[in-house]
Amino acid sequence: MVVVLEKNISDKQIENVIKHLEEFGFAVHKSTGVEQIILGAIGVKPDFDTRKVKILDGVAEVYRITEPFKLASRTFRKEDTVIKIKDVSIGGNEVIMMAGPCSVENEDQIFTIAEIVAKSGAKILRGGAFKPRTSPYAFQGLGEDGLRLLRNAADKYNLLVITEVMESSQINLIEEYTDIFQVGARNMQNFSLLRDLGKTTKPIMLKRGLAATVEDWLMSAEYILANGNRDVMLCERGIRTFETYTRNTFDLSAIPVVHKRSHLPVIADPSHATGLRDKVLPMARAAVAAGADGLMVEVHNDPEKALSDGPQALLPEQFMELMQQVKLIAGVIGRKM
Amino acid sequence: MVVVLEKNISDKQIENVIKHLEEFGFAVHKSTGVEQIILGAIGVKPDFDTRKVKILDGVAEVYRITEPFKLASRTFRKEDTVIKIKDVSIGGNEVIMMAGPCSVENEDQIFTIAEIVAKSGAKILRGGAFKPRTSPYAFQGLGEDGLRLLRNAADKYNLLVITEVMESSQINLIEEYTDIFQVGARNMQNFSLLRDLGKTTKPIMLKRGLAATVEDWLMSAEYILANGNRDVMLCERGIRTFETYTRNTFDLSAIPVVHKRSHLPVIADPSHATGLRDKVLPMARAAVAAGADGLMVEVHNDPEKALSDGPQALLPEQFMELMQQVKLIAGVIGRKM
Amino acid sequence: MVVVLEKNISDKQIENVIKHLEEFGFAVHKSTGVEQIILGAIGVKPDFDTRKVKILDGVAEVYRITEPFKLASRTFRKEDTVIKIKDVSIGGNEVIMMAGPCSVENEDQIFTIAEIVAKSGAKILRGGAFKPRTSPYAFQGLGEDGLRLLRNAADKYNLLVITEVMESSQINLIEEYTDIFQVGARNMQNFSLLRDLGKTTKPIMLKRGLAATVEDWLMSAEYILANGNRDVMLCERGIRTFETYTRNTFDLSAIPVVHKRSHLPVIADPSHATGLRDKVLPMARAAVAAGADGLMVEVHNDPEKALSDGPQALLPEQFMELMQQVKLIAGVIGRKM
Amino acid sequence: MVVVLEKNISDKQIENVIKHLEEFGFAVHKSTGVEQIILGAIGVKPDFDTRKVKILDGVAEVYRITEPFKLASRTFRKEDTVIKIKDVSIGGNEVIMMAGPCSVENEDQIFTIAEIVAKSGAKILRGGAFKPRTSPYAFQGLGEDGLRLLRNAADKYNLLVITEVMESSQINLIEEYTDIFQVGARNMQNFSLLRDLGKTTKPIMLKRGLAATVEDWLMSAEYILANGNRDVMLCERGIRTFETYTRNTFDLSAIPVVHKRSHLPVIADPSHATGLRDKVLPMARAAVAAGADGLMVEVHNDPEKALSDGPQALLPEQFMELMQQVKLIAGVIGRKM
Repeated sequence: MVVVLEKNISDKQIENVIKHLEEFGFAVHKSTGVEQIILGAIGVKPDFDTRKVKILDGVAEVYRITEPFKLASRTFRKEDTVIKIKDVSIGGNEVIMMAGPCSVENEDQIFTIAEIVAKSGAKILRGGAFKPRTSPYAFQGLGEDGLRLLRNAADKYNLLVITEVMESSQINLIEEYTDIFQVGARNMQNFSLLRDLGKTTKPIMLKRGLAATVEDWLMSAEYILANGNRDVMLCERGIRTFETYTRNTFDLSAIPVVHKRSHLPVIADPSHATGLRDKVLPMARAAVAAGADGLMVEVHNDPEKALSDGPQALLPEQFMELMQQVKLIAGVIGRKM
Repeated sequence: MVVVLEKNISDKQIENVIKHLEEFGFAVHKSTGVEQIILGAIGVKPDFDTRKVKILDGVAEVYRITEPFKLASRTFRKEDTVIKIKDVSIGGNEVIMMAGPCSVENEDQIFTIAEIVAKSGAKILRGGAFKPRTSPYAFQGLGEDGLRLLRNAADKYNLLVITEVMESSQINLIEEYTDIFQVGARNMQNFSLLRDLGKTTKPIMLKRGLAATVEDWLMSAEYILANGNRDVMLCERGIRTFETYTRNTFDLSAIPVVHKRSHLPVIADPSHATGLRDKVLPMARAAVAAGADGLMVEVHNDPEKALSDGPQALLPEQFMELMQQVKLIAGVIGRKM
Repeated sequence: MVVVLEKNISDKQIENVIKHLEEFGFAVHKSTGVEQIILGAIGVKPDFDTRKVKILDGVAEVYRITEPFKLASRTFRKEDTVIKIKDVSIGGNEVIMMAGPCSVENEDQIFTIAEIVAKSGAKILRGGAFKPRTSPYAFQGLGEDGLRLLRNAADKYNLLVITEVMESSQINLIEEYTDIFQVGARNMQNFSLLRDLGKTTKPIMLKRGLAATVEDWLMSAEYILANGNRDVMLCERGIRTFETYTRNTFDLSAIPVVHKRSHLPVIADPSHATGLRDKVLPMARAAVAAGADGLMVEVHNDPEKALSDGPQALLPEQFMELMQQVKLIAGVIGRKM
Repeated sequence: MVVVLEKNISDKQIENVIKHLEEFGFAVHKSTGVEQIILGAIGVKPDFDTRKVKILDGVAEVYRITEPFKLASRTFRKEDTVIKIKDVSIGGNEVIMMAGPCSVENEDQIFTIAEIVAKSGAKILRGGAFKPRTSPYAFQGLGEDGLRLLRNAADKYNLLVITEVMESSQINLIEEYTDIFQVGARNMQNFSLLRDLGKTTKPIMLKRGLAATVEDWLMSAEYILANGNRDVMLCERGIRTFETYTRNTFDLSAIPVVHKRSHLPVIADPSHATGLRDKVLPMARAAVAAGADGLMVEVHNDPEKALSDGPQALLPEQFMELMQQVKLIAGVIGRKM
């Protein structure tokens, strides 16, 4: 931590700041410049609240200088994390496609879509059984029936399953059916849930919160990692800004940023980021071009009748076109799909 | 719902849009202008996804025109909701002060602070026993011990208790000790928690999420209301913007906005909104001047040693000064404190 | 315009609203639903302030329903605008590269870079002679000397020139030297400048403001178009959000959004959007994959010594690699480069 | 400036970073901690681009540690700037009211409003003669005729005049009529205009840009100050966020923040910040409670017929009520009005 002192600070104030720093457990190193004195405070702990120093008399600015996350950082682990589930590797050279409906609605729907997904060459089937809905009056998902249908459809077409968990009490149940737990954007800072998922052994996909900085997001990943589960992948799905023509603003720069700061894989979800079907194809291409390790896309055989988020679901033929185009783009940057 | 058609729409496309609207359950009313045709679609349900219409061929724009929340709206209930707990009324003429430490740390601390809070004329003691912390390595609260200390301190000084609940499994435990459940900003869209709190009978204070519009916030209140609990108050505590000199941007305009749209009381929390002690006093004054029904403020007898958020806690004498000033401002707008 | 009336509105209030609408020049069409009355107000003018209706007694909501821009809209002109300058076409099938230094610094620098730019296959040389700098103490550009060097370097290597104009008084001077006027993000709503540029005959590239919605941006384009100059291209260069790991948030979804709403070409500037060299390559690829009609990229032969924005400038070999990769990506979506 | 090196940096890399820093003109001071090496670089110039260091091999983070503005900072000048114009002082103990219509429309209108403004006890008459309008089709102001009417109305009722300047070419003309130049939010980073205003001798009110951080805003003030004009006041008028129920988000915390960082007075404009009449009164009260040195408010004798921004203008009786309430609130914090 670096503590910059005010220009007109008195000797007594300097002593007082140093005394506090030492009481907080820091080794202190003073450098006196022409205009200002700077204190280097060595040994900052990840949870230290730098505002404790900022409010001391005579302190102008405080900089943490070390990242508040540790296990999630590239400094802690140089090599990319590659998550292996059966014959699928996430975070390696291959770009992974996860596709399926927003919600599992009935047997016919999920089997039909699973077949489309498998034919396209995608490896993972998505589908919600417990749905976080902004309105208490909206369809909340089929629950365990949905999980069972999803698993059966995936098994029939040799796909893996990813589905969302909304609260700790659902973990055991969902674990029986899924290969990957998905944590939704609105739960990114549901710390109880993150802690409990950290104690499971199945991989977790952590979606970025609407107002989460990349740092917040990596801190939430740290919760899972610190509780023992090292198979965490991140998912960019748009942040909230002033722009209203799209549902959210898809922050694709976050992909190279995360790859520099962290060793964890990053998936991109153009369906939720844009909220409208005709924006999904160009933004899926852009995400792969920006270096995403995978895509999550909503597909529906009959989106007009979908019980949730139909308007952002691709039609089967659009999805096939998307698969073809992103495969070519993956090739341009030396990756497979 | 109002559906604006594109200027060059064909008769067949118009028919198709109308057919869809009727299938969705709407009564349709067509008005033909010089340049454009507009369809009025009567009978929109709160959970209808307007994008289902937006993606139809020939549709230019769709406007919901009715608010997606119902029980929370001023249209549903004209009179202000006044929440009564023992001899305290929240949402009436009196401006209510809730004060106390960020976290309950030990017996001495919470009793000392409770005494200060009571002496100042405040009615409600705040304090966290379960703390949502961004870092998994930070102090997470004393748990049930903290709840017990908080209750005992409040009882000794004749105060009510407000404390945060982070997950459904804590509801029964916390209910034994608290008078008001607090839902934190990061859990504002933890819909499972909201639903379960809706089944309790104690009042809930729902903090606004960092990226929540006023509409999102009222939709979250709707979850609680729709599950049966009508004693909901809201709490503005800052939203996330590009500005970095303050921790969050305190959106005080939200106070008159909520008062117009909803009948629910609005509390303001200048401690979390600004994140630094010297901004709390002016922003507490501003919140009352803007019409807040109450304030939540952090106070600590020894903030330098506080285990969490010490830098934003007021010193006892600063808190006394704040109480004096906000009382005078409440008087200017015809309210008591 | 659609005017939604409050549920409990009186007949007298309805009459009053209708009277006002008629005075504002609208033809009014009333539809009475089960719960609510809606007025269709036909004939809204682009500059009508809908708040004039919103504040009338008994009015619940007002929706404009027509876009406030006209000449810039896809409704006004169905075909893409293609801007032709000598043998270069912007907005057609070819993806156009504009490259060069942030500022023209001296003869040697600009000729060296122009040679690199030309060799790579790019068609347009960028370089600033008048620089908008946040600090009054920073290098403000070489002025007319810079323009002359830029023109000479471009002519030698058979390139077109784009350079920024900061105020109306510079228009005549810059017009002598440039092929395209660039309007910077901070001047996007400098309406005097836009009006005066609208009276020139050279193409304009209008950068998006940091806080500009797509609608604001198209309204600014409308200023230029309405004053007579139809050769306007837009340039996405990042918007301001809460994220701090990148300088700005590159809003690539704006590219397909603009292409749907407007006929004007859209260029993307990954150098300013990200602010750091190692993010430029992935985001340039992403921009082309998202459908950008061109790229603007900063290149410098000796970025460490650059007088401005060196840290975001690509090295010559990085620029060559970028050209190769984006050419391949353009091919995937059926475009040339 | 503080340069944090990466943990695994080689000696050769360290030497290289130090060499660069010295070439950039810094005196370098090295401190070696247990985990990391930190370099103190003494002598940073206000315009130094810290990214030049950030991109060097082995550099983890760079912190400027000194504010990029100088003349605007509280460090440079401890005492509050008090701007004196005839018998009015802005930035002293008195809270100053500026009021009037958005645009000057005709003689009758401006004289009627000036009389109301004067009667209320306000000291300064506002009114636009040159209007920055988002739409090229909207009313753009009366120009010099408007200036003349404004001056005459102010003189008759013994008021000062504030009016907006949009471009450098208007400065001489407007200077003949006004007491204070207003720079609008959209021109906050029109650096040519700021520079030219810095060479005048009349006070300037600089409105905050929609996407401007407090730092950006003070940098723009620095432009004016550095060119010689020391009579600068700032005006908070709302920033752009995701919230849509208000036109902008009124950032009242910026008032105490600016007062800490800078010696310049801060005015607040609740009319533009909220955009709707019924939010102006509570937010005007809140601004004074937060410590604003003055208010700017729109008043109109016949807002329904106003040529611009009528919906946010107060009616005369509302304005009188506002004056009474804010006077009382000013008293609570020991200020006069």
